[in-house]
Amino acid sequence: VKFEVTILGSGSAAPTLGRNPSGHLVNIRERFILVDCGEGTQVQLRRYKIKFQRINHIMISHLHGDHFFGLVGLLSTFHLLGREMALNIYAPKALQDIIELQLKVSATRLRYPLNFIYLESKSSELIFEDNLIEVRTIPLDHRVYCNGFLIREKVGQRRINKELLAKYKIPLAIIPQLKDGKDWEKESGEVLKNEVLTLNPHRARAYAYCSDTRYNESILDHINDVDLLYCETTFLKAHLDRAKATFHCTAEQAATLAKKANVGRLLTGHYSGRYSNIADFEAEAKTVFDNVVLGSEGVKVEIKL
Amino acid sequence: VKFEVTILGSGSAAPTLGRNPSGHLVNIRERFILVDCGEGTQVQLRRYKIKFQRINHIMISHLHGDHFFGLVGLLSTFHLLGREMALNIYAPKALQDIIELQLKVSATRLRYPLNFIYLESKSSELIFEDNLIEVRTIPLDHRVYCNGFLIREKVGQRRINKELLAKYKIPLAIIPQLKDGKDWEKESGEVLKNEVLTLNPHRARAYAYCSDTRYNESILDHINDVDLLYCETTFLKAHLDRAKATFHCTAEQAATLAKKANVGRLLTGHYSGRYSNIADFEAEAKTVFDNVVLGSEGVKVEIKL
Repeated sequence: VKFEVTILGSGSAAPTLGRNPSGHLVNIRERFILVDCGEGTQVQLRRYKIKFQRINHIMISHLHGDHFFGLVGLLSTFHLLGREMALNIYAPKALQDIIELQLKVSATRLRYPLNFIYLESKSSELIFEDNLIEVRTIPLDHRVYCNGFLIREKVGQRRINKELLAKYKIPLAIIPQLKDGKDWEKESGEVLKNEVLTLNPHRARAYAYCSDTRYNESILDHINDVDLLYCETTFLKAHLDRAKATFHCTAEQAATLAKKANVGRLLTGHYSGRYSNIADFEAEAKTVFDNVVLGSEGVKVEIKL
Repeated sequence: VKFEVTILGSGSAAPTLGRNPSGHLVNIRERFILVDCGEGTQVQLRRYKIKFQRINHIMISHLHGDHFFGLVGLLSTFHLLGREMALNIYAPKALQDIIELQLKVSATRLRYPLNFIYLESKSSELIFEDNLIEVRTIPLDHRVYCNGFLIREKVGQRRINKELLAKYKIPLAIIPQLKDGKDWEKESGEVLKNEVLTLNPHRARAYAYCSDTRYNESILDHINDVDLLYCETTFLKAHLDRAKATFHCTAEQAATLAKKANVGRLLTGHYSGRYSNIADFEAEAKTVFDNVVLGSEGVKVEIKL
């Protein structure tokens, strides 16, 4: 029941020695989702010992280079490593043209199916779900078309408790129906209510990835009450003018969104290269909102049950 | 009068933690030429403290990803750093399409002129020259259209020697004509021959970059007597079959080319990721040819006068 985010890159614009462009690896109940893929992301995956071939979904927020220049290399490496499993890429359609052109000129025919799911709606949409999780887009407000991603568990089944099993002498055969929320009608005709026999499901955990975006309260509806909000903090408030001009957030603005949305924790990142001490982002955010995780390369943030 | 090659990447195919894909930075008499540009090359330039903005020429051997996936990011970083000076890119035309498409989708208009010089000839051609250096292509034999590059000094001017200056009481005003090889006719009518008054020019140094290619002696004509030959050594001879099948060289083959071309030194690289100990490449090459430089990230090879 793991739910963990690994920061592969916390920089913006150009990669530097210590700071990679955007990339978050999300492990949600053993589904591995890569969100954004700046240059060098594949080396970061190696650095943090993430098994490449377990990644089946790559979601790209928008087509600025620091969010996708590493994708074609990663796809190529999947191919070289012998991948056969299909890979789903969620991105604006133009990314497909970019990838296919580069594969074509290098005469590469991928060994695995590449499925592009085009993001083009300006409203939130469900882009992936299975029995345990779902992912929805979060429309963001940037210079080019851009989406965040709300990655969350579905509300799970009701839970069986050993003490109750013993107390009511519940036969194993009826456990599945109890998990589905049904009552138990004994052979005697007596009916025992489900809520008496089982425990409530665990709360469905949620992670919201919001980058790149300027301060815009329209995202609050999508991120309300999430356990972990990653909101880009490209600038400190001393450079609010730059943030406005380039459609980015300051640390203070990100913290304000976190507070208004009543999230569990705020994760920072996408720092401008002009700052040498990223601890300043944490300090600034904490003036508004207490639960701040300072994002940087290799940081893992677990969302506990 | 510096002439130095810095290895930015000595790997092939996929980047790993310690090994980058292809990239050589050539400083020839303060002209900076980047040859190939795999993913992560820009970070390597930072690592080895090379001033980005001094690079005015980028030459791409062929359109396999490990030779160009880092280019679009580097061009983007030049832009972010405020570059205004024109940049020349020598490559197959399709690379222009790839770069322009990615700049277009990210709504980036570069601040500096980008000049593409298309490589399409199957014969060697002069692609750049100025007063001091020249660069010619070396047609290689790979799975896709591919060029090496012969980067060399022009034969310089004749040299003035202080002792001869004094001995013959040569007026400073006539030094330029002596450097150009002209004789000196004194006012008395006496003629002193140039070869008596000056020293021979330094020998014109040359560096040949040959990657990727299978063993093919047709390149010998182009690389004869160069001071430094970089010839890819993707495989050890134990994997000669793989080398043949993928149009690459073994260390032994590269050394054979070096020996037959009578080069000064052989520089190895483009190692397949299957080998953990690259010293084996040096050992294998040395069974054929003595002067081997084992290429790896950060190695600088100076070509002395």
